[in-house]
Amino acid sequence: MSAEQVSMAPLAEAVKQPVPHPLCPITASEIRNAARLIRRLYPSKPEFQFKAITLEEPLKAQLAPYLQAEHQGARLPNIDRRAFVSYYLRNTDKLHEAIVNLSQQKVESNVRLGPHMHGPGDWEEIVLVEKIALEDEGVKAEIAKLGLPEDTVVISDPWIYGSDGNNDDRRMYQCFLYMRDPRNPGNLDSNHYAFPLAISPVVDCVELKVIRIDFCPTGEGLESKPSQPIPIPEANEYTPEHQKSLRTDLKPLNVIQPEGASFKVTQVGETGQVIEWQKWSFRVGFNQREGMVLYDVQYDGRSLFYRLSLSDMNIPYADPRPPFHKKAAFDLGDAGAGTMANNLKLGCDCLGAIHYLSAVLSTDSGDAMPMENVVCVHEQDAGIGWKHTNYRTGRAAITRSRELVVQSIITVANYEYIMAFMFNQAAEVTYEVRATGIISTQPVDEGVEVPWGTVVHPGVLATHHQHIFSLRVDPAIDGHSNSLVYDEVHPMPISDFNPYGTGYTVSESTVQKSSGLDTDYSTNRTYKIQNNYSRNPVNNKAVAYKIHAPPFQKMVAHPSSFHHKRAEFADHNIYVTKYHDDELYAGGKYTNQSRGGAGVRAWANRKENVVDDDIVVWIQFGLQHVTRIEDFPVMPCEIIKVSLKPVNFFDKNPALDVPPSNQEFNRSTEVTERHMQSSVEAQVGDCCAPSSKL
Amino acid sequence: MSAEQVSMAPLAEAVKQPVPHPLCPITASEIRNAARLIRRLYPSKPEFQFKAITLEEPLKAQLAPYLQAEHQGARLPNIDRRAFVSYYLRNTDKLHEAIVNLSQQKVESNVRLGPHMHGPGDWEEIVLVEKIALEDEGVKAEIAKLGLPEDTVVISDPWIYGSDGNNDDRRMYQCFLYMRDPRNPGNLDSNHYAFPLAISPVVDCVELKVIRIDFCPTGEGLESKPSQPIPIPEANEYTPEHQKSLRTDLKPLNVIQPEGASFKVTQVGETGQVIEWQKWSFRVGFNQREGMVLYDVQYDGRSLFYRLSLSDMNIPYADPRPPFHKKAAFDLGDAGAGTMANNLKLGCDCLGAIHYLSAVLSTDSGDAMPMENVVCVHEQDAGIGWKHTNYRTGRAAITRSRELVVQSIITVANYEYIMAFMFNQAAEVTYEVRATGIISTQPVDEGVEVPWGTVVHPGVLATHHQHIFSLRVDPAIDGHSNSLVYDEVHPMPISDFNPYGTGYTVSESTVQKSSGLDTDYSTNRTYKIQNNYSRNPVNNKAVAYKIHAPPFQKMVAHPSSFHHKRAEFADHNIYVTKYHDDELYAGGKYTNQSRGGAGVRAWANRKENVVDDDIVVWIQFGLQHVTRIEDFPVMPCEIIKVSLKPVNFFDKNPALDVPPSNQEFNRSTEVTERHMQSSVEAQVGDCCAPSSKL
Repeated sequence: MSAEQVSMAPLAEAVKQPVPHPLCPITASEIRNAARLIRRLYPSKPEFQFKAITLEEPLKAQLAPYLQAEHQGARLPNIDRRAFVSYYLRNTDKLHEAIVNLSQQKVESNVRLGPHMHGPGDWEEIVLVEKIALEDEGVKAEIAKLGLPEDTVVISDPWIYGSDGNNDDRRMYQCFLYMRDPRNPGNLDSNHYAFPLAISPVVDCVELKVIRIDFCPTGEGLESKPSQPIPIPEANEYTPEHQKSLRTDLKPLNVIQPEGASFKVTQVGETGQVIEWQKWSFRVGFNQREGMVLYDVQYDGRSLFYRLSLSDMNIPYADPRPPFHKKAAFDLGDAGAGTMANNLKLGCDCLGAIHYLSAVLSTDSGDAMPMENVVCVHEQDAGIGWKHTNYRTGRAAITRSRELVVQSIITVANYEYIMAFMFNQAAEVTYEVRATGIISTQPVDEGVEVPWGTVVHPGVLATHHQHIFSLRVDPAIDGHSNSLVYDEVHPMPISDFNPYGTGYTVSESTVQKSSGLDTDYSTNRTYKIQNNYSRNPVNNKAVAYKIHAPPFQKMVAHPSSFHHKRAEFADHNIYVTKYHDDELYAGGKYTNQSRGGAGVRAWANRKENVVDDDIVVWIQFGLQHVTRIEDFPVMPCEIIKVSLKPVNFFDKNPALDVPPSNQEFNRSTEVTERHMQSSVEAQVGDCCAPSSKL
Repeated sequence: MSAEQVSMAPLAEAVKQPVPHPLCPITASEIRNAARLIRRLYPSKPEFQFKAITLEEPLKAQLAPYLQAEHQGARLPNIDRRAFVSYYLRNTDKLHEAIVNLSQQKVESNVRLGPHMHGPGDWEEIVLVEKIALEDEGVKAEIAKLGLPEDTVVISDPWIYGSDGNNDDRRMYQCFLYMRDPRNPGNLDSNHYAFPLAISPVVDCVELKVIRIDFCPTGEGLESKPSQPIPIPEANEYTPEHQKSLRTDLKPLNVIQPEGASFKVTQVGETGQVIEWQKWSFRVGFNQREGMVLYDVQYDGRSLFYRLSLSDMNIPYADPRPPFHKKAAFDLGDAGAGTMANNLKLGCDCLGAIHYLSAVLSTDSGDAMPMENVVCVHEQDAGIGWKHTNYRTGRAAITRSRELVVQSIITVANYEYIMAFMFNQAAEVTYEVRATGIISTQPVDEGVEVPWGTVVHPGVLATHHQHIFSLRVDPAIDGHSNSLVYDEVHPMPISDFNPYGTGYTVSESTVQKSSGLDTDYSTNRTYKIQNNYSRNPVNNKAVAYKIHAPPFQKMVAHPSSFHHKRAEFADHNIYVTKYHDDELYAGGKYTNQSRGGAGVRAWANRKENVVDDDIVVWIQFGLQHVTRIEDFPVMPCEIIKVSLKPVNFFDKNPALDVPPSNQEFNRSTEVTERHMQSSVEAQVGDCCAPSSKL
């Protein structure tokens, strides 16, 4: 507990607007109310820096029966509304987490957290730290030595400090400096990542001042150079008005839904949303840390998932030299996918009939901050769904696949992630990540080549890095008693039964204890989440959903490194744990300057039973991003998809009842000669005729 | 040479319509002309069964300089037109292959092929074999024992016989029998794969009669049962009119291109097509074996690929019991992706502004057969191309990614493959395969479970199987001197330079000799096709295209098995060979009842130089299809993608000049309340209020 005097008596005030469902995200008034209840604890009226005021989801022991009753139309149990609050007493290192019972208007717990537990950044703090770095006299003196043209604008990008064990118990930011194109300082959207500088101030979060200036190495070795006049390369802008020319031969492609969208969104109170589409139904939540979260995902009235969300991500960099050796961002835990969500302005980010969901998050002062259009919902055509032609009659039966996309986009300083849950008519759900934005850059001397990065512009090194994600799947496949099993394909031994050596079999194994597990393509090892108590009516197999996740290189950093210790999910394709309330984030609840030991690896090490039990499955996926010049100044999307697909869950192809694809429905057009400027080439072989240039 | 008397004197007749480009597919008149020239060889006037009359592509030594001259606008060398002809003297096992010089009207070579070289099936033959099997008195007698309802229609699916070394030197078909729904025998499109029978006649292709009747095992063991009355399960139809109900809540989604398509198709003579789109240009060919082929693929005037095509596929099955142990289809070599191509009727298979390409193939009688709408060309939206938001100004820069799709769909009896080359604006090309259609079924007794298949309907076993594909990439990355290199990511040892254990490096290795190679996710091993003589102007790295191909389980069958010997590509992710003319098909030129030793494994074993040389890269990919009930009666598409992406080939993101995505261009709409029937749920917590049912 804090040394502050606190009072935990309930606030005697009526609840004015009961929230209609326990899974509705926290409302604006609940945020303010929670902040007020926290403030009331401290008669000394300190200043607060709130890091998160968000829904404390009900214990599963309460919520699962509630949802069951709801689906059965039975009497609903009462569940108190609770808020999770994390906050600092401002200008201290005193991080607290509290649970506030909003129904009873009281603070149920309020704890000051121990060492190596640091809150994430917040917008207000990041803007302040930028300013502190740039206004520091020492930093200014170093910048002055660079001999930059007058009016040059230097930009400071504060980075979460990371962990190296060197005097890093306190909370700090490592700022990386860049400049806008010095030849065009008025261009506020100049790509400053094309002009990295070697000066890197460290800002202390309690003292709010620069406590050290690091200098980045720019050659092949460890050493950095004293600040000195630098060459100014050409700019490398990504904004359209700065391109020499834009393509003029791309014609419009419009997605028109003349009868509107096929999905239904039901608003539940101020903040809740239920989406129904093509036999699917689920609730959408949104919070500071994970951004969008899906709850109670059902297909055709059958339970599939209790909760789905991206739980964590880690981006470790390859350059071993200080200060770069600490670069290993946890974008969710260090900042927040909710906090960083884009406003998806109509027409720029999606095609077709789009619905936007807005949310509310908390500010550092404990107020509510509206987050508009942070999730978009739309349908998209996904090509042919299934097709068969009877070659004897020529009759083709065909459907197109329609997908429902629930998407959010986040900007993490230089980088963007486009994240979407996609549902289809074959009862499959896919989680897609598109990595785009601007790769993180650092200065490099002319002529220097290093094996941990690629020169993408004169003076600019893009360091190789990994993106490792953890998707948290809290399954409820036909109920909460689930197991993780894996199929493997093995050749049959050559024998009288298999004399030609062509036979092979599929074996199924059940994971017994919570653990980290890997894929193996040599045996086609495939993980399934299975309900052994629910059997397929035709073939009597246990119903299951299988996991399709692309392979990736696990964390490259040494197992003894802080990178490895901290990213607790980064060493296995799959983790399975026994469900415990409050275990939501694979890298642990507090990732900022974390030390490890508080995430999924630790939970798995409890070696608990995961057979026919309430389990959680953590699916890791990622990219080893060996940078290439084509990724600069902004990278074309790199796409990763993870899918969950039914296996013997239905009694036939669940998309069999999708109406056939036909011209009356599709309204496609045939491209005519007029559009295509068809022509005939000059005849070849006549040596006097000019050849046509294609 | 054949024992027939042959005459190889030129036919003294003028060439009436010179074909305007050496890469134009063979024309109808050329087909007839080639057949005539072949017939003229035989004064005895035997009957011919033509298997293929197709373009014999020019030697690269001739064509490469031609294309270079063409692109430079220089004088074009003359190249004779040649046809490749394979044929049987009908009702014999005398398979010949001939090269016919169409320009000089003479047969340049005509060779009778040796043992274990068999031609593919053709439509006329398949229909004939079906009939022979069903009209055989012995087969009829066996069918009579099944006690089927009167009017039951039995269907025979002829399968390529396969190889097991047991008295299988001659060319045969193994027929699998099914029946249409006996309760509804008038339904010509009944899914007969839901009613597999255990009687399997073998038809000899020379004698054209049933030479043996095999009986399929239907239990767990090797033994089969004598034919006896069988139960008739329910039907399991895939056609929409046989579904209990179709979904009624899917609203239209139209792709409208108000200004037409952005691509240009130039017709070249009767059969040639040049496609230009968004800086890409290439020629499209079409032949009996591979279906669509792309030639001379360029981006922004720079050479990338000399030739791209799917070269082969193999589908081995898991059941070791005769007659199933021989099931291992080579759909291209045994039948032909051209031969089996669907007519892509407008509006059923694609959305938007579509252009269809037609082709011409040869018939068994040496005539020309028009193949209409076998390739479709259209654009599609592929989601966000790249995005960055400047968090300081809030300015988002965003493009959508447009793709050009060149697609063909084939039906191989029960099964469908949807195959497409997709080009994007970031200079990436992707080859996509969607596997759909009806899985191959066999009869199974009630209550039997076997580890090599899944019961997908009462009495119906869907055997597990693999799909292994080989994409042939004949590269010309900035020219013909290319190398295959691979990057690997390795941790740095812990040292004074890397004290925190976080550093890692990328190393590049060059493949020296032709060989089979594998991916390795533990080192992120990534293959690149590289031109060491063309350097990036910014970072001096060799220009390259990297290969992204998903991992797959290699051929499971034993290395000593015919399955393994025959599918010469199925044991490695990548093969690289030195270019030789006439080496186009990874499994060898003649796959029907082949013995192996004539494909890419054999070519690689020559251990030729592949450094800075004219090389060919064979990319394998595939599916281990562990069948599930959801794959029946028709399976939802399973999608695999292989991509080729530039690495240090350009000097920045090549899609940087794509115009920004905006509402004026996209014309998206916001879904309004009216469409969505927004409502508010009943308040919860009031125990007397009914809960809303979602």
